[in-house]
Amino acid sequence: MIAQSLQWKNDALEILDQRQLPQRIRYLRCHSYPSVIKAIDELAVRGAPAIGIVAAYGVYLGIKNMQTKERFLTEFPLVVEKFKASRPTAVNLFWALGRMEKIVKRREKSLAELKKELLDEALIIHNEEKEKCEKIARYGAKLIKDGFTVLTHCNTGMLATGGIGTALGIIYKAKQEGKRISVIVTETRPLLQGARLTTWELKQTDIEVTLICDSAAAWTMKNKKIDCLIVGADRIAGNGDIANKIGTYNLAILARTHKIPFYVAAPTSTFDWNLKNGKEIPIETRNAEEITFTPLEKFSKGAGVKRKKITPDGINVFNPAFDVTPAKFISAIITEEGILRPTSGHFLLDKVFRMV
Amino acid sequence: MIAQSLQWKNDALEILDQRQLPQRIRYLRCHSYPSVIKAIDELAVRGAPAIGIVAAYGVYLGIKNMQTKERFLTEFPLVVEKFKASRPTAVNLFWALGRMEKIVKRREKSLAELKKELLDEALIIHNEEKEKCEKIARYGAKLIKDGFTVLTHCNTGMLATGGIGTALGIIYKAKQEGKRISVIVTETRPLLQGARLTTWELKQTDIEVTLICDSAAAWTMKNKKIDCLIVGADRIAGNGDIANKIGTYNLAILARTHKIPFYVAAPTSTFDWNLKNGKEIPIETRNAEEITFTPLEKFSKGAGVKRKKITPDGINVFNPAFDVTPAKFISAIITEEGILRPTSGHFLLDKVFRMV
Repeated sequence: MIAQSLQWKNDALEILDQRQLPQRIRYLRCHSYPSVIKAIDELAVRGAPAIGIVAAYGVYLGIKNMQTKERFLTEFPLVVEKFKASRPTAVNLFWALGRMEKIVKRREKSLAELKKELLDEALIIHNEEKEKCEKIARYGAKLIKDGFTVLTHCNTGMLATGGIGTALGIIYKAKQEGKRISVIVTETRPLLQGARLTTWELKQTDIEVTLICDSAAAWTMKNKKIDCLIVGADRIAGNGDIANKIGTYNLAILARTHKIPFYVAAPTSTFDWNLKNGKEIPIETRNAEEITFTPLEKFSKGAGVKRKKITPDGINVFNPAFDVTPAKFISAIITEEGILRPTSGHFLLDKVFRMV
Repeated sequence: MIAQSLQWKNDALEILDQRQLPQRIRYLRCHSYPSVIKAIDELAVRGAPAIGIVAAYGVYLGIKNMQTKERFLTEFPLVVEKFKASRPTAVNLFWALGRMEKIVKRREKSLAELKKELLDEALIIHNEEKEKCEKIARYGAKLIKDGFTVLTHCNTGMLATGGIGTALGIIYKAKQEGKRISVIVTETRPLLQGARLTTWELKQTDIEVTLICDSAAAWTMKNKKIDCLIVGADRIAGNGDIANKIGTYNLAILARTHKIPFYVAAPTSTFDWNLKNGKEIPIETRNAEEITFTPLEKFSKGAGVKRKKITPDGINVFNPAFDVTPAKFISAIITEEGILRPTSGHFLLDKVFRMV
């Protein structure tokens, strides 16, 4: 299958640089926490579960050279805060950081023990997220029949999760089970994660893929056989409203209009039980230049490719990185614990999941 | 205001090369019909009304050097057929060519008379289309109140029509009437007519413009004050179904969900009374490379900018240039004859318009 996207190796974190895909397979070797924050900030690594994993490793890198427990206790929260500030929407980041913080609350431990337990926790988080992907894939694959055409958005595979993926993981699993699957993928402007990353993953696993512009979604739903949509999520509120890559809300409405099931696949680490509904999810707004310039600058670092201005100067740009899809548009949320279906119009909270 | 986009001057057709905007203002001077067909084919000129106008001039260029009436009568239909084959969806092309054909049906005329009448007809078509834009703008501006924010798609202004535009013309007129107007424009993938052309036109006329990705439309409708959508059309079937730039059908559904009026602005030359409904409209599918490569190659001719591959090799692409929006999603069609409103769920045919 595909190369590892995230790997802890010889006391450093190796990150497959997603900005350079599909042109080049290059790994960033992060020995220090600022390089991990830079990788998150510049989208060398992206995808809600993957961000959580690298942040956990990053926190360990941030404290591993502390020489005294006093220094450690001063520095640790500062390092955690820097990661918290790196991206606002995906909750897996805060969830993973929360787990790291819990380790340090047991202050009776020695510095060496704390360091070891922090690295162990990062490795456990990584491993658990991988296993959750497997479980999500097994549950989700039950919804996929032989001969299905699935429409997906953005990238939710190996690159986004450190495991086999969430929405894409389900597609891989269905294929492994011998089902014939065809995938339609939206290019996912502005950063083209669909056109660059999802096509690349699907090509490697020999699954037929057709790329469309985001704007062609409704026409494609009307004119091609599409059996379901599956997308990931960056944060899920208590009522089942989900934040995901900008364009997800478009697709959910269009799927409803065309009577196509709309599935969301995400580990339970994506749930934010503190939030009553999607209105409370903070939505990251990104740089205008993602839209006003040609898209290859960051993906072709050092390759002498200059990006060019597309638009005239002096215009306003609204560039939200995510949107919120209300639960009422979602047919099911596929988690590692099972499949959640809406009950009387809204998803049930926490321990009252209706598993199917 | 803005430079002329189309001009008949010294026995040649001058076309503002839209591929190079907004970086450079360059005119193509077409002395022969193949250069006009090339300009249409390569999208140096685009927009349904503009294509009709340049095809009329192009037909004249195709026969103006014929030395005998016999030769003229042999060549004329061949030239017309070449224009008919240039682009399939916009009906204004066929409408304008039909008017040119009618001139030649009066065969008793001399060669000199036929030539003169063909040029006159092209000039009349151009002038009439300009006047229709003015009338559409006046009718449409009645729907725009002071302080409105209008969302539009693709480019429907001076560049697309040879006049002040259809959907954009309405916005210009409302501004001329002293109304404060703000415009949100979708970038319009794959060829970015919104990002490159509509932003450029609006900047020149000092109207506030905010660019969004096509994928951000639903989220923008939910979170910003949008008072109405106005788009153009490339062909309108007898029942009011409209073909327009890919993404229009997305927007119509999203507007309906968010209870925002969805207006279509087009001259009556866009109506195709031969077609019962939108299913009969031929939809052009364009080259995969419009999506798989970075977008600036054609817009930066001779500027040494190389386009780069975005996607991996060997994937399928579905790239329809237009989609069809069913009449039921349309709040009104604004024509030079007046505003059509749906009556009992569908638009009324031809002479039974319900004008308002």
